[in-house]
Amino acid sequence: MRAIEPIPDAMQAAVLHAYDGAPDSLRVETRPVPRPQRGQVLVKMTAAPINPSDLMFLKGLYGVLKPLPVAPGWEGAGRVVATGDDWLSRLLLGKRVACAAPNQHDGTWAEYMLTASARCVPLIDAIDDEAGAMLIVNPLTAWALMDTARRGGHRAFVQTAAASALGRMLLRLSQHFGVEGIHIVRREEQAELLRSMGARYVLNSEAAGFDEQLRETCRQLNATIAFEAVSGMTAAQVLRALPDGGRLVLYGALSESPLMADPRDLIFQRKRVEGFWLTDWLAGRSLLGQLRLARQVQHALGDLLRSEVAGRYPLQEVHRALQDYQASMTAGKRLLVMHEK
Amino acid sequence: MRAIEPIPDAMQAAVLHAYDGAPDSLRVETRPVPRPQRGQVLVKMTAAPINPSDLMFLKGLYGVLKPLPVAPGWEGAGRVVATGDDWLSRLLLGKRVACAAPNQHDGTWAEYMLTASARCVPLIDAIDDEAGAMLIVNPLTAWALMDTARRGGHRAFVQTAAASALGRMLLRLSQHFGVEGIHIVRREEQAELLRSMGARYVLNSEAAGFDEQLRETCRQLNATIAFEAVSGMTAAQVLRALPDGGRLVLYGALSESPLMADPRDLIFQRKRVEGFWLTDWLAGRSLLGQLRLARQVQHALGDLLRSEVAGRYPLQEVHRALQDYQASMTAGKRLLVMHEK
Repeated sequence: MRAIEPIPDAMQAAVLHAYDGAPDSLRVETRPVPRPQRGQVLVKMTAAPINPSDLMFLKGLYGVLKPLPVAPGWEGAGRVVATGDDWLSRLLLGKRVACAAPNQHDGTWAEYMLTASARCVPLIDAIDDEAGAMLIVNPLTAWALMDTARRGGHRAFVQTAAASALGRMLLRLSQHFGVEGIHIVRREEQAELLRSMGARYVLNSEAAGFDEQLRETCRQLNATIAFEAVSGMTAAQVLRALPDGGRLVLYGALSESPLMADPRDLIFQRKRVEGFWLTDWLAGRSLLGQLRLARQVQHALGDLLRSEVAGRYPLQEVHRALQDYQASMTAGKRLLVMHEK
Repeated sequence: MRAIEPIPDAMQAAVLHAYDGAPDSLRVETRPVPRPQRGQVLVKMTAAPINPSDLMFLKGLYGVLKPLPVAPGWEGAGRVVATGDDWLSRLLLGKRVACAAPNQHDGTWAEYMLTASARCVPLIDAIDDEAGAMLIVNPLTAWALMDTARRGGHRAFVQTAAASALGRMLLRLSQHFGVEGIHIVRREEQAELLRSMGARYVLNSEAAGFDEQLRETCRQLNATIAFEAVSGMTAAQVLRALPDGGRLVLYGALSESPLMADPRDLIFQRKRVEGFWLTDWLAGRSLLGQLRLARQVQHALGDLLRSEVAGRYPLQEVHRALQDYQASMTAGKRLLVMHEK
């Protein structure tokens, strides 16, 4: 192990004890600080956001179940303070990085996190740790979805949960790349927010005549792909509205319900349903391609891919952070702040 | 118009008056006999089967809704007794044909049917009208599904409703082509039937431990594609059991329920859901390719693609035929017999 500063034996971490979504099951506790092996780095965490995928993880609804007890948190940023003895890890020593949690062990809601060197992205100077902490999950997903729409030759797309942090990024990217979007929200203030950002086609799914309006707008713009984050009946509604041959890409399940689809859409209208997971998408790219992408995305972080921060909380107040986030996701991200920079 | 015999002005036909599935909505009535125009033929019907797609059509659940009142029936066989004045139609004059109904007008449950010349397949001598009446829907679909599995490089497949006429064809084709199948049925006598046909992997979805057994068998055989005809929760069960990257092809909805799917299968396991419709599949082939296919399939009709007939009914007794078919689809096809050959 190489280190740039003394590594303590113990740390504070939010620790999950049961996948039941009960507040009591998540407790801030003392945990040992692990030591990096070959191919690993120890990140002294600065900040970590709460994302929808974290909420799913707490309830056991995320696609990855880690052995309990475990620290949640899929992404964050900090400084690499110790590494294994291989060249790639050593290159990262002392660097500020955005980092993704490992699939088996403790995540980012802790003072230190051990992860694979390949799951870290060195931050450029223009990006501070707070923005860096929100580099991976939303910006890269938004980028990947836009890439999917453009490579597939789709001239327009539909998206649900359009007022989410990710949805707003997708809106800005679509404006930047000249791909038209149809943005579905559930409340009027969300619709106004998106319109104030210049969105031309915003539909409120709770308004009368929504189904008909969605179908008509899809037809008019030839929106042949949908990015769907709600699942349940929302997926069925959106699939129904797509023109013949339309493609629904599910990347979230905010409703926590099974996806539904009308058999007629699949059988007689050649529509299809697939999923999107950032991990798979990244795995399809070379290490060099991933690094190039990480730089591109960082340069857009201040602008197209920026996240609004609605609140900062010390790790001890993780429950308040979770409550505030669930009460209003549209207001912006909640960040857990572990160490001052 | 050219004709080989006098064409009467009126005929008997089963006529549907409402898409509500009520017995009263289907009545045998007198209808005018239409006259063929350019590109059309008039078929004097010999026989027409009842298929699951007809049951869906009667309830308005099929992908195509025709203006009412209308004669149901998607396929059948008979002799071309009159044609329009174009060369393709004239070639068919006097020929015995298998024929598919038009998407807008009256179908095969009638003494005469007007359809496009391109929707007729001349029957070879070895195939009688009864077998020919069941040439299109099941045999071609089974052939197309097997083709899909083989072209996709799938070494094994799953199928639901495996004891249906189509399911049994798929079993025989899989034995012929050396592709392994996992056959899902709902009753023990169906399982025994398939085992007596030589099926090695037959699972009863009502038996204890079904989910686990299905998953384990899919893993063992690397069954990466499923042909699903039930929809609803059955689709979710099958999708769940497929290995990572598995593909579910929906070609029916016997449960009359929306397809359900676990978001985790789509998002984290790269599984996908699509539909199959014979009409689309055929449209992707040239006319010559379709004719070649029709000959291939006819040569297999006596053997791999044979249908068992469980009962023959005059058109007047269409209600009894429907009741018997719905009471036991596994027993075999019910044929409506319109004219003696």
